[in-house]
Parts: sequence; structure tokens; C-alpha cells
Amino acid sequence: MIDVDALRDSYISTPSKLVMLVVDGLGGVPHTETRLSELETASVPNLDRLAQRSACGFTIPVLPGVTPGSGPGHLALFGYDPLSHFIGRGAMEALGIDVDLREGDVAARGNFCTVDSGGRLVDRRAGRIASEVSIPLCHELDGIDLDGLDLRVYPVEGYRFVLHIRGAGLSDRISETDPQATGVPALQAKALAPEAERAASAVREFVTRAAEVLRNEERANMVLLRGFSSLPHLPSMGDVYRLHPAAIAAYPMYRGLATIAGMKVIPTGRTFAEEVNTLREHYDDHDFFYIHYKPADAAGEDGNFDAKVRALEELDTQLPRLVELDPDALMVAGDHSTPAIYGGHSWHPVPFLVHSRWTMGEGVHGFSERAFAAGSLGRMPATQAMLMGLAHAGKITKFGP
Amino acid sequence: MIDVDALRDSYISTPSKLVMLVVDGLGGVPHTETRLSELETASVPNLDRLAQRSACGFTIPVLPGVTPGSGPGHLALFGYDPLSHFIGRGAMEALGIDVDLREGDVAARGNFCTVDSGGRLVDRRAGRIASEVSIPLCHELDGIDLDGLDLRVYPVEGYRFVLHIRGAGLSDRISETDPQATGVPALQAKALAPEAERAASAVREFVTRAAEVLRNEERANMVLLRGFSSLPHLPSMGDVYRLHPAAIAAYPMYRGLATIAGMKVIPTGRTFAEEVNTLREHYDDHDFFYIHYKPADAAGEDGNFDAKVRALEELDTQLPRLVELDPDALMVAGDHSTPAIYGGHSWHPVPFLVHSRWTMGEGVHGFSERAFAAGSLGRMPATQAMLMGLAHAGKITKFGP
Repeated sequence: MIDVDALRDSYISTPSKLVMLVVDGLGGVPHTETRLSELETASVPNLDRLAQRSACGFTIPVLPGVTPGSGPGHLALFGYDPLSHFIGRGAMEALGIDVDLREGDVAARGNFCTVDSGGRLVDRRAGRIASEVSIPLCHELDGIDLDGLDLRVYPVEGYRFVLHIRGAGLSDRISETDPQATGVPALQAKALAPEAERAASAVREFVTRAAEVLRNEERANMVLLRGFSSLPHLPSMGDVYRLHPAAIAAYPMYRGLATIAGMKVIPTGRTFAEEVNTLREHYDDHDFFYIHYKPADAAGEDGNFDAKVRALEELDTQLPRLVELDPDALMVAGDHSTPAIYGGHSWHPVPFLVHSRWTMGEGVHGFSERAFAAGSLGRMPATQAMLMGLAHAGKITKFGP
Repeated sequence: MIDVDALRDSYISTPSKLVMLVVDGLGGVPHTETRLSELETASVPNLDRLAQRSACGFTIPVLPGVTPGSGPGHLALFGYDPLSHFIGRGAMEALGIDVDLREGDVAARGNFCTVDSGGRLVDRRAGRIASEVSIPLCHELDGIDLDGLDLRVYPVEGYRFVLHIRGAGLSDRISETDPQATGVPALQAKALAPEAERAASAVREFVTRAAEVLRNEERANMVLLRGFSSLPHLPSMGDVYRLHPAAIAAYPMYRGLATIAGMKVIPTGRTFAEEVNTLREHYDDHDFFYIHYKPADAAGEDGNFDAKVRALEELDTQLPRLVELDPDALMVAGDHSTPAIYGGHSWHPVPFLVHSRWTMGEGVHGFSERAFAAGSLGRMPATQAMLMGLAHAGKITKFGP
């Protein structure tokens, strides 16, 4: 958390309301032909109007040039240094399917794979089997019982699953079994630290038993495991900032990230409109709301410029229902940029604004990367976004006499 | 190196090419009469065109307000924190004249000086004797033989020389002998730490022997030594960033700095045009090139505004020969600003751009301090320039899942 020790006594609990809208993959770059970015191309009159009376700028999710995954991108916005609080692949995968992952548990990303009669890998993705095939296999693996441990296997999609182990004395310091090559056998899971012996031994036992269970399968006759990870221990956002924070997100991964940060997750529907309904219904119950909008990132990841433009326009139609609530501070942020021409997350600074009674507008004419370059916030580490929101909502007192 | 631990696994080796052009003393400030800076005054159509389709901004070499020497300015651009990796005066002086300084060696900046019959300093620069006078004296001092040590004395210019000591168990924690005053004797070199006893004793012995060698000289009858320094131990840039880096620089000091960073130095000529020839000839052999342009700094140091303008224009004529190579990412950077009206290195932010297939231009109309204020990169620590280049060249993977 940003300078938590020095600022610890600066945060105060007040009745004021703070809303952080996180638009996943918000930022973009100009299209090669039109030379206009997704935000510049989209018709977003409500975002434009909001920008005209807000303080505008950019957040840098991790460091200039560093492209964040969703985990680091969100942790930073919640105030945690993403370089010192890492969430591994297995844990992220588990959070993404709503697994009840708790501190001390170990999760791994699993692949079904194909091995030949000599145990050598033929296909690391088992011919990309369909979920209809893999789901029953996951149920069979889920039946594997390891002494003294609670072991679960959850299907993700196609050949992918999550292995989740709960029990005393586990550690995630375990080497991966995926050799990232074919023609060779899967690797043995090894403890990378003495405290991981028990977990590594459990994983080896699981793999042996899984191979027995799957031995008659034609394609999915073996498993590979990687990204062994536990949840990082984070100070609760509510404790540090003296907030009663809530999260509203249609996608499980973002609910999981909010849980790690100590937010209460409010059940909601599958669309952003339903998320906004949920926010409005629970508006009296919390003083901080994180609300997540996914479609902009999904379109950017697909490299679909037009779809990202439409996703931003769709968001814009819902914005008035947030603004209407008139929170004491409203932040519009992004966990990272996802430029459609790049077709993935990128390192670009992410547009950020905060609106409150203290923002009168600063000549920024609309909501876009180019327009925000003239904003008063400049470029700031994403870890400082919370400070900005707290300040505008009157939740930080003067530092020092 | 930038957060090397957290990002260690993010760097990937790829065939893509990265070129960092370092224009020494690049930045300036407006002329008192025309109110235009050197870059704004110069006709630099090629730099302007490049800026129009690049991501533009500024690097801050050390900290706002801190004027860097060439050492810190370059180390920062190579990704090393200049506040924690210091290169002392003696080492920089040695690098500047192509001394083969290696880890564990100790170098010092030497002055010939004049003392009276009582040993009191009369002139700390020996009447600024000419190189014709000092070079033969350096050869005589070079003949001093200290038991078990390899001691060398190299002329620099006029009254200045470099003392270079190689041997086991040396340390640079030695006090200076220059009292920075006349009318008093030279100081005794003292060990500032127990491990420096051997080196300090060697230095005292050298000074005694040098005084004997020089006793019949009228002006240069004694020596003063300061800036005792060894090379810092830096992680190799190639190892950290998984690059095969090369340096092309006409001036020895910059080759020395590149060597410290672990780059391979490619021999080249004395002009920038020859440097570019060298780059073109070796373009297939490396994936990262640092190429150095000196004249802008030299003109700025002289306080010669017009000469700096001409130096920038001269650079501009060569630029197309770099751009033509079409590197995956091309950075134009400076180690520090050298405003002509200031007549020396300064603390000002330094214009910086990166061009790649991901930069479409951002409304920056030309290559100047004022135009770059509208750029998307804002002001970033110079230590982050490499990250930006690596990102644009596709050499950093996503951080975190």
C-alpha cells in the first residue's frame, strides 16, 4: 500500500461515497488508417461531458514499458505495489472460475495432455479436447483422495483445469511439470524450498493417480501442472484506508481480486447494466465501490477495433446511471490498456479521471488519450489512484502540521 | 537495473532490433533573445518527421534539479540507477582515454603541481603546463616500479594525467592528496577503510618516488591525486535484458561506459557518419545498439548556441541512414541537457522518443522541448527508457497473469 506507514494516520472514515469504475483495457492507440484511437473514434458524449468537468490524466500500471496482467493491473489500482505483491497463474486461474481459494491453499493451472506408451508427451493440450470431454474427466480426477488433504479439480475450458489443494503445511514453491516441449516425459514436481516438501509430494501422488484414472483415454491420458501459487497476504484495503469497500463484477476473476484486497463482493448479474443496478441497490451500504466493465478489454484482445469502439459506446450509455448517484468522488480508471491494433494488453499509460465537487474542468475537451495529455493529473503510478480518489472524497487529512 | 528481481523473467530474447541513439547534451533551453531553444532554432526536418510518428516525452536523468555527469547520464539510459551505481572521477578519467580499466583496479585523476622548497603548494596546476611538457614527465612517472603492483601513468591533457594501479587486494577507499588550496603541503593519502591499506601505502610510495623523479622540474615538481576509484560492479545489460548489445562511439569515455554495462564495443571511426557506417555494417550481429553523438554537448559546453544548432542539423542529415534500417524500435535519447546559454550540463529533462510499428504519432509536430510536452510519454526516469524500448521491440512479456 502506498507509503502505508507514513500515511497510516492520514486516512479517515467519513460518510462520503467513492466509486471507482474500472474499464478493463480502457486505453488504446490510434488506428493505422484513421489515426484515431478507439476512444477518439467512439461516440461517448457522457464520458466526454464528465471529462470536461473532471481532473484528468493517466495511470502507469506497473512501470513505463511494462505490460501488466489483470492481477497486477487491478492490485495497483487498489493501492498495492504490483511489483511486490504477486499473484501466480494458478491462483489467478482459480479466481477466474470462482474457486474459494484461501490463504495457505495451493492452486495450479492444469492441462490435459497426450503421452505415448513410453510416457513421452505427444500433445501438450490433448488435441484441444472440448469441455464436454474434459468436464467428466475433471469430475473423475476430483474423486482422487489424498490423505489429510482436501484436493479438488475444477474444469476451466477445453483442455484446461484448476487443481486446488487445501491442508496444513502447504507451500506453493513447487516446480512445474510441464516441460514446454513434446517428445519428452512430463517433469516431476519438486519442492523448491524445504517447506514445500509436503505439497510437492502430494502433487506427485496426484499426478500418478491421475495417470491411472486417465490411462484408457485416447487423448487426455495425462496431466501437466504449472503456475503453483498461493494467495499473497495483503493488508485489507478497508483496514488501511478506513473504508467499508465493496466490489461489483460480473466476472469471477475480478471478484477474486477484490476479495484478496479485502472487499466485500456483492453478488450481481452478467451484464454491466446489472452491475449498475446492484450498485444502486447497495449504495447506502458501503463508502467505496469498485465496479468492473469487461467488454472493452475482450474486444481489444480480439484485435477488433470496431468492437472495442462499440464496447466503449455501450459503457457510455450506462455512465449517466453512475453519475446520477452523485458520489462524492467518481473515478474512471483502467487496469491496463488493450489497444485493438496490438490485440492484447499493452504497456501504455491508461486514461484516468476523478470527478468531485472540487473539479471544475481544466480545458480537457473529451475522454481520450490525446485529450487527457492536457489534463492536470499528468502521469501517475496507478498505485496512487486511490489516494487521489480518497482526497477528492475528503477521506485523507492533512499530512503533518 | 530497474526492479530486476520482480521483472527478471519478463525479458525475452527475440530477433527484433533495438537502436538507442544517444545525443550527448541533447536538450536545451530558449535563447534569451529569440526565445527559441537550440532544437527549435535548428532545421531538423528528419527529426521532426520522426517525432511526428513516434511516442514522445522526456527522461529525467537522475532526479529533477540534479545535473548529471556523463557517467550517471549514460548509466541511467542503460537502466542502472545512477544513485546507487557510482563511477568515480579517476575511473571516468581513465575511461576517457581508453585505459584498460578492469574490476579491482584503482584509478586516480592526477595533476602536476608546483611546490616551494618547503613543500608548500604554489600552483595546483603547475602553471598549466602544455601537453608537450607533461607527456615526457608522464613517461618518467610510468617507469616507477612498485613491488607486486602494475602501476601506469597516462597523460590526459596539459597538467592532467591518470594514475592506474592493478594488483591483488586493492581498494579505492583512499583519501585525496589535493588540499584544494595553496600555501599548504599536499596531503598524505590515507586508507579510509582497512581493506585500502595496501593501496594507500602504494599511493604514498608513488607520490614520494614521483617527487624524486620531478625534483629538478621548475613547475611540475610534484603531483596531486584525487578521485581514487574502481569500476562499480554492474550486472551485465545483456544478461539482465537478454540482449546481445553493442556500442558504437567515437569517444573513448562512452566506449568505457558501454563496457561497464557489458556491451560489446565495435571499433569505429572518429565521426558520427563513420559510426553509422559501423552500425550498418554490423547490423546483423546484435539485437541492441547504442550509438553516441557527441558534438551537441561539446557546443553546449562551449556556450556556443549557433554551434549547437549546427551540431543538431548535422545530426539530422545522418538520421535517415539510421531510420532506413527500420529497427523494430528506435529510441532517440540524451544523457542530459546542455543548454548553450547555460554553458554546461544541466538538470533539465531531456527529449526522448521511441518509434516502432506501434507508434502512429500523437499530434507532436516536431522535435523540440516545447513540442514534446504534448507527447504521450510525459516525464519518466531515464532508467525506464530501456523498458520503453524493449516493450516497443516486443522484448518484454506481460508481467503477471
